[in-house]
Amino acid sequence: MRSTDPRRHVPATGHAQREPELRLYGVNACLAAFAARPHDLRKVYLSEARLPRLREVLAHCVRARLGYRMVEEDDLRRLAASSHHEGVVFDMRPPQVPTLGQLLQSTVGTNASLLLWLDGVGNPHNLGAVLRSAAHFGAAAVLLPPGSGLALSGAAARVAEGGAEAVPLIRLADADAAQQQLRAAGYRLAATVPRGGQNLFECELAAKTVLIFGAETSGIGANLLQAASLLVGIPGSGAVESLNISTAAAVCLAEWRRRHPW
Amino acid sequence: MRSTDPRRHVPATGHAQREPELRLYGVNACLAAFAARPHDLRKVYLSEARLPRLREVLAHCVRARLGYRMVEEDDLRRLAASSHHEGVVFDMRPPQVPTLGQLLQSTVGTNASLLLWLDGVGNPHNLGAVLRSAAHFGAAAVLLPPGSGLALSGAAARVAEGGAEAVPLIRLADADAAQQQLRAAGYRLAATVPRGGQNLFECELAAKTVLIFGAETSGIGANLLQAASLLVGIPGSGAVESLNISTAAAVCLAEWRRRHPW
Repeated sequence: MRSTDPRRHVPATGHAQREPELRLYGVNACLAAFAARPHDLRKVYLSEARLPRLREVLAHCVRARLGYRMVEEDDLRRLAASSHHEGVVFDMRPPQVPTLGQLLQSTVGTNASLLLWLDGVGNPHNLGAVLRSAAHFGAAAVLLPPGSGLALSGAAARVAEGGAEAVPLIRLADADAAQQQLRAAGYRLAATVPRGGQNLFECELAAKTVLIFGAETSGIGANLLQAASLLVGIPGSGAVESLNISTAAAVCLAEWRRRHPW
Repeated sequence: MRSTDPRRHVPATGHAQREPELRLYGVNACLAAFAARPHDLRKVYLSEARLPRLREVLAHCVRARLGYRMVEEDDLRRLAASSHHEGVVFDMRPPQVPTLGQLLQSTVGTNASLLLWLDGVGNPHNLGAVLRSAAHFGAAAVLLPPGSGLALSGAAARVAEGGAEAVPLIRLADADAAQQQLRAAGYRLAATVPRGGQNLFECELAAKTVLIFGAETSGIGANLLQAASLLVGIPGSGAVESLNISTAAAVCLAEWRRRHPW
């Protein structure tokens, strides 16, 4: 293959679009993105061993005149900037994400809706793990505060195993305004805390809830903590200080879903 | 410092023991091991920045005539064979682990006791994440089948954040015999499955339960699946195929603990 800098997500040859592209890798992440939005696919790189799993994708590439290349392991590692490529790299347009207003509009008629707010979480692997669990338990969105260093990346999407296509990742323009919007739409803000919160298994968990998680070291910002109408903790033995953020999120998601089944 | 091959866990100078040593790294993993079994400490490597957190450990080293060395980042990375050393590496004797028989003897008087059985799980990070959650929710042990490639490692202990000291990791000598022992001790075997299991939130979860988890791709071995008296699944949207093994374990641990609180 020709030399390609994995950090430059150039549009595939023959396409003049100047839109940003997302470099995805990992079988489930790529196949979920293709299934959800085949028209956003721009280019495919794969190992020979991945041909059988990707036959439908390649047929689409031929029909849509998109480029695909069979490449070596080394190239895939370089393209993905990761050894976790699993034999496939896609360049795609990023998913269209609703604004918070649009999302809330879409949940007006629903009885139960859960949102996650990640305040200060900075690790793409934790983000990916949260997206996977959020997709499994049917959360409506993951919200990021204005200053968050997080964004949907290939690494996060790979760990999410398809979950990044099912759960929109919404970057808030203004945290205070978002809190008001959420409350006006009937959501209750519940902040998860390592100590001093109400027992997750015994507290009231409203049908429309925003579960807020902070960074493992610094926790949730003071303003947001103050704005929460519920502080909730996951009861534990004390043998470890806390749960990992993505584990804590999964346990809370599961408990909310248990109370508000499909 | 003198040249040290990080793969050779040599006993600290002045100690004639030929016992195997475990190379631990990460602040919480090391401090938890020291708190639980200071007499097992053999050698300490630390960065200058870690001095304040390790003052008590170093005082112990002086009293017990154990070696400690202040070293550079590069040395720590080499000693830990990882960049996640967090400024501290301990050489320690591994924790003493009970046999399954001893463990079961110790739970005879207890009303509620949960064990995890990891069948085919091979990733040290998943093991570490399971140990952290198992410690948080107070599981009595994690069981590994005879052929498991897993063992307590520095990587697993670091991810467990101290949980590896609280929950013994017991390697079974014979899987069939272990199943009989567990049943005779009053435990019910519950196998977690991605499809076709009873709803975790609705099924009966006995006070004495062994939760069995399989590898993400290959699942639980046929023999063990057959031996389980309950197949249990975590209800999901279907947007992702399954949860990560460590996430699934945490959700099951939480649900068991919700039903059988301390």
